[in-house]
Amino acid sequence: MASNPACLFCRIIKREIPSKVLFETEHSLAFLDIGPLSEGHTVVIPKHHAQFLHELPDAEMADLLPTAKKVALAIGCKDYNILQNNGRIAHQVVDHVHFHVIPKPNADEGLVMEWKTKETNGDKLEELRKRILKL
Amino acid sequence: MASNPACLFCRIIKREIPSKVLFETEHSLAFLDIGPLSEGHTVVIPKHHAQFLHELPDAEMADLLPTAKKVALAIGCKDYNILQNNGRIAHQVVDHVHFHVIPKPNADEGLVMEWKTKETNGDKLEELRKRILKL
Repeated sequence: MASNPACLFCRIIKREIPSKVLFETEHSLAFLDIGPLSEGHTVVIPKHHAQFLHELPDAEMADLLPTAKKVALAIGCKDYNILQNNGRIAHQVVDHVHFHVIPKPNADEGLVMEWKTKETNGDKLEELRKRILKL
Repeated sequence: MASNPACLFCRIIKREIPSKVLFETEHSLAFLDIGPLSEGHTVVIPKHHAQFLHELPDAEMADLLPTAKKVALAIGCKDYNILQNNGRIAHQVVDHVHFHVIPKPNADEGLVMEWKTKETNGDKLEELRKRILKL
């Protein structure tokens, strides 16, 4: 399992830095965020060090969503968001893959986002699909 | 595998409603969002119908992140967000678990969010941890 001695989350996994752990599985760790957007805001990480989701081996992903689900059930929040950011522009701050489980108790707390959709149509999406799949 | 005949995404899975499919696996389907926040915005869903992540059986989650990773690699976006919303207040619109893969080409496009952290400290987090874990 890859580990980076300079990585904050790798050090949390090794208990070199303390955290408030909720759950631990073979491949994942869940702990309370120290800068929460709402009460119960939790971070779920793979133990394998990878900066981006697309760099994480599939086998190391196996525990992440079941652990996030366990967190949501334990917190008992009705509404919540699961968010995983890749890259600085996308608001990634720690360079180790992490999933936020963010309870959404009301419109102002938790994850506040804009949903600015762009114009498209079936022909444009089909052209894009072919481009993505190199068809 | 649970299916709901009135659910838009279950109907997309059954090809009763057309969509621009990128990838399909045993337990998941990935297709282009018709109301994209940025070019390449894709939705990844489990084939099993469940409204919320915490209602989805663990076995039905297995393909979701590997499929999201495949989407990110195929789109070739450097920065992107993975988002899954549960409940109306948390911006869930279709009542079938879905993960958004949202490319973030720049600050204005893709997922735009606020990050309003709340004050807390180690004692409060420890008290919260015990409350969540019923210790």
